[in-house]
Amino acid sequence: MVERVKVAVVGVGNNVSALVQGIALYRASGSVTGIRRPVLEGLGVGDVDFVAAFATSPEKIGRDLSEVIFLPPNNYPRITGELPLSGVTVRRGITDTADATEVDRVAGELAGAEVVLYAAPSGRPETAHAYAEAALRAGAAFINTTADPVARDPQLLDRYARAGLPLLGDDLTSQFGTSAVHHALLRLLEERGLSLTSSYQVNLGGTEDFRNLVENGDTKMRSKLNALASESEAPGRVQVAPLGYLPHLKSHKVAHINIEAQAWGETTVSLDVKLTVHDPSGAAGVNIDLVRMAANALRQRRGGYLDEAAPLLKSPPGTAV
Amino acid sequence: MVERVKVAVVGVGNNVSALVQGIALYRASGSVTGIRRPVLEGLGVGDVDFVAAFATSPEKIGRDLSEVIFLPPNNYPRITGELPLSGVTVRRGITDTADATEVDRVAGELAGAEVVLYAAPSGRPETAHAYAEAALRAGAAFINTTADPVARDPQLLDRYARAGLPLLGDDLTSQFGTSAVHHALLRLLEERGLSLTSSYQVNLGGTEDFRNLVENGDTKMRSKLNALASESEAPGRVQVAPLGYLPHLKSHKVAHINIEAQAWGETTVSLDVKLTVHDPSGAAGVNIDLVRMAANALRQRRGGYLDEAAPLLKSPPGTAV
Amino acid sequence: MVERVKVAVVGVGNNVSALVQGIALYRASGSVTGIRRPVLEGLGVGDVDFVAAFATSPEKIGRDLSEVIFLPPNNYPRITGELPLSGVTVRRGITDTADATEVDRVAGELAGAEVVLYAAPSGRPETAHAYAEAALRAGAAFINTTADPVARDPQLLDRYARAGLPLLGDDLTSQFGTSAVHHALLRLLEERGLSLTSSYQVNLGGTEDFRNLVENGDTKMRSKLNALASESEAPGRVQVAPLGYLPHLKSHKVAHINIEAQAWGETTVSLDVKLTVHDPSGAAGVNIDLVRMAANALRQRRGGYLDEAAPLLKSPPGTAV
Amino acid sequence: MVERVKVAVVGVGNNVSALVQGIALYRASGSVTGIRRPVLEGLGVGDVDFVAAFATSPEKIGRDLSEVIFLPPNNYPRITGELPLSGVTVRRGITDTADATEVDRVAGELAGAEVVLYAAPSGRPETAHAYAEAALRAGAAFINTTADPVARDPQLLDRYARAGLPLLGDDLTSQFGTSAVHHALLRLLEERGLSLTSSYQVNLGGTEDFRNLVENGDTKMRSKLNALASESEAPGRVQVAPLGYLPHLKSHKVAHINIEAQAWGETTVSLDVKLTVHDPSGAAGVNIDLVRMAANALRQRRGGYLDEAAPLLKSPPGTAV
Repeated sequence: MVERVKVAVVGVGNNVSALVQGIALYRASGSVTGIRRPVLEGLGVGDVDFVAAFATSPEKIGRDLSEVIFLPPNNYPRITGELPLSGVTVRRGITDTADATEVDRVAGELAGAEVVLYAAPSGRPETAHAYAEAALRAGAAFINTTADPVARDPQLLDRYARAGLPLLGDDLTSQFGTSAVHHALLRLLEERGLSLTSSYQVNLGGTEDFRNLVENGDTKMRSKLNALASESEAPGRVQVAPLGYLPHLKSHKVAHINIEAQAWGETTVSLDVKLTVHDPSGAAGVNIDLVRMAANALRQRRGGYLDEAAPLLKSPPGTAV
Repeated sequence: MVERVKVAVVGVGNNVSALVQGIALYRASGSVTGIRRPVLEGLGVGDVDFVAAFATSPEKIGRDLSEVIFLPPNNYPRITGELPLSGVTVRRGITDTADATEVDRVAGELAGAEVVLYAAPSGRPETAHAYAEAALRAGAAFINTTADPVARDPQLLDRYARAGLPLLGDDLTSQFGTSAVHHALLRLLEERGLSLTSSYQVNLGGTEDFRNLVENGDTKMRSKLNALASESEAPGRVQVAPLGYLPHLKSHKVAHINIEAQAWGETTVSLDVKLTVHDPSGAAGVNIDLVRMAANALRQRRGGYLDEAAPLLKSPPGTAV
Repeated sequence: MVERVKVAVVGVGNNVSALVQGIALYRASGSVTGIRRPVLEGLGVGDVDFVAAFATSPEKIGRDLSEVIFLPPNNYPRITGELPLSGVTVRRGITDTADATEVDRVAGELAGAEVVLYAAPSGRPETAHAYAEAALRAGAAFINTTADPVARDPQLLDRYARAGLPLLGDDLTSQFGTSAVHHALLRLLEERGLSLTSSYQVNLGGTEDFRNLVENGDTKMRSKLNALASESEAPGRVQVAPLGYLPHLKSHKVAHINIEAQAWGETTVSLDVKLTVHDPSGAAGVNIDLVRMAANALRQRRGGYLDEAAPLLKSPPGTAV
Repeated sequence: MVERVKVAVVGVGNNVSALVQGIALYRASGSVTGIRRPVLEGLGVGDVDFVAAFATSPEKIGRDLSEVIFLPPNNYPRITGELPLSGVTVRRGITDTADATEVDRVAGELAGAEVVLYAAPSGRPETAHAYAEAALRAGAAFINTTADPVARDPQLLDRYARAGLPLLGDDLTSQFGTSAVHHALLRLLEERGLSLTSSYQVNLGGTEDFRNLVENGDTKMRSKLNALASESEAPGRVQVAPLGYLPHLKSHKVAHINIEAQAWGETTVSLDVKLTVHDPSGAAGVNIDLVRMAANALRQRRGGYLDEAAPLLKSPPGTAV
């Protein structure tokens, strides 16, 4: 009998809702539908227990994790019949990073956790660092799902490595999203000898994460653009339109992709794609693997970064901060 | 200076129009836009000359190849500014396969051709065999682009092999078409651990070839279905709707592809794709490679089937007739 | 307090499932979401009671209507939490139209019904007539939702008129379907002075009704074609592709519509539409109005055809049989 | 023989390119393809002559109008075989509105023009007023195609009315665009009793005008939103995503429209639309009517605003500035 992984989560948004509910769903049904790795080095997707959770909104603190995941602005759907209480009370997270006692307090509350999944909003690098510090003190592995540089901090990574603690990050790819589809199609064009004329991608979403991305400018857009342009060896031929925050979409993400190319005889080929996914499912489908990778490595005393995590991360150590 | 390949074509439909015009276009412009292999073992796409052509419609016989490719029901567009006369007069093809002297006549008219590209409509296996016989007598390589079994005839293949003449077939894949896109997306889903719920594909076209397919029933449809179902390891979950012959589309082929799947948490993922291509360009983009492969092998005295041609053929030797 | 309409249904397929469930849903919730006429001359959508039902499949006969609507091949979804038994036992319908006593038997079993909704599969005109005869004897209004000519039979219509009984038919439009959308867009083009270049429509579905249409050839397709072509005053420019029966779609109907046109300067305008509906909902959304129109007219002793039903019918009296 | 309308244009962008080329195209071919009103009160689309043109870019000034319409950043395609020189040399427009002599100079240069078509970029209301002043002095009708308030200036309108000169504006609708299609579909839903759940619209374009809209914020977006929301009597259910400036699209405008609704039984209906148009053609298709309306009114001495122009204008007199 495998020992379940003990996970603490920081931030109780849609992505944690998708993770908590998905684990409950699969545990109850025994289904493996939609799971990338039903078993990862001996750990099933149900072999994960939540032991602590941190949030900053007053209305979330003090309530059970199974309730908090459904509080607005969370809008990921209820995917299980009914979700029993988790027994995990959401605690007050770190709000004042200048207060050194806060890190100590959280480190104490992390006692017993093997993996800390940092799933707060992007854009607060100091907070991310404070939690990474607390996890290090508590002897837990740390996963940074935000775009803030944590695993890309060489000194922090070194301290984790020396402590025999895994440190995974930064930023998640999605189990299945716009980039994957766009890439696959551009690659196919290239293989078949088609010449790319132009291509665009429009992304629409309705989550808080999406709203943050829209408001924090086009960083993500630009990185997408670069990634796609290099893929097609056609710099400047792939364009990413501004993100559109459309609250009606709730946790759906909708992408419209267009590709115009030329085949034999310079005749035109057109591809139009509409993709609809639940954005938080894409994150949870990757987090479930990172959590199990981190737990396995921790139990094997492999500290620092883990190469097997690379395909699941957008900005692993070594990439530009 | 490379010696140009001398090609005879049987059937002067849209696919030959795309090949003839494309070669002229690329020769004139030096462009490599839309070409899969600009140079194949030393042969460029412009290194192909037409030396003979055969057709059966009275209005095609006796006229120059460069004119005949634009006669109805051909409806591939004019892609070059103006096309000079080719100097090749379209000859009367074989109509009575019971008349043994016909094969001799055509064999004589094939004198000098290195490669015979058989591009007549599918569905007349005896005619295909008669031309293959004539090409064998004339010492030329033979490419069967139709679905009729020619290269899959073990005895014929053996005779070609012993004569040191390449025999390539049967049936073409496309440079870029519905199957390629549908496959690529189903494969991506599988890689990412999504579970396929259902998928369909609708193909619409306006060429004579397309009309023949519609009228000759669902053979092609069924083979598509099998191919896709195996791909996704989800037999019965991929459906191919009846082909639609829509004359307005002319040489365009339009495909609508839908994929419904489940990701983490059994949440839904939907993909809708519209693909528009020029069908004859897809054939010509493959024929240009088969012709060069056949010519190179002929010049190197490699007879029979060529393994390098496998990715370009739907039904190579060894597959079911 | 309005007196509820007493309805007998013939045929217990998807369309009746949608009607029965929808009425229960709206009655329970008081919602008016998705209803075209919440109240029609005093009758709400909940003011309809089922008093008799007829079917021919042995597995349907003798069971409660509320159970039978979910038996395969019916595949309309369950849209209400739970549906109480209706108290209406499905009876054996007419199978032998040559047996005169059958009509008498059914007429007897229709006693008390105000409206007979004939919703059996199309293609059995004699059976439709037998039920119309039985309804006439029972003093009930008759609605023919099939394409078989019933209301278009002048003698039958005359008998209904003289008896003061409404006779509505033939064939239903849909509350919202491909034709409506295609028409609306072609009309808009015309209003704005665009010139239609070409247009196509592909319809895919997964119900038994859809399968019947596919197997019974292209009658419906041709009538769609005619309707659309006249709309656009561009005969031959609108094409309807073969219907595709795709069982995965269940009760969904999916349509792909393309419109190519020219605007000022003869520059191109393209419109691509994907429409997804539940086909039986479209029928039920119209049947609920026909039932109430028929009941109101019956109670007011207005017999024969009702002009107000015209927009809801494809082939009203006077159109070609 | 009708006397041709003498038109002066201010601003030589894509919209003027579409107008100038379209008139030449139709005059040469006699075609009426894509024209809303081939003849408007006796005036054909070819009955328009350009007699003056003004621009501010140094590279445009002093060259023939027929050349200037093709200078970057204009990117409307060449739709006529070859365009002869117009004989109209582009003059220096007003750049300093504080310089009173400028208005006098331009008024002098407008001598002989019957209609001044103001087609400069939006966002410079003082410049628009200066030209309107010049036109008034020159005795010409004035059409303001920009969003800047000109016809909505009651005093100016009054002066035009008293002078017997037409003043048309402000802002153009399009011959055929996103709003028209979105409206038509929402209206159809309403007619059929469907309940709108949510709807979005994404607009992408590649012209300078489009870039200006993107950079000048969401004014246009908001007005679209309001228009659509009122249409559907569902405030807040229709969302317009941020405009996307994608230079690759050149003068194409692409819109993605999604509509989610509920039909009978609260079952879902989905509509996805992709619309592709040439934006400047949409403007020219309306400008050709405004020019002819203005000329006819001028010749009939009907001054001020013309009611018949209302459907062609977004912000006619009386609407909010």
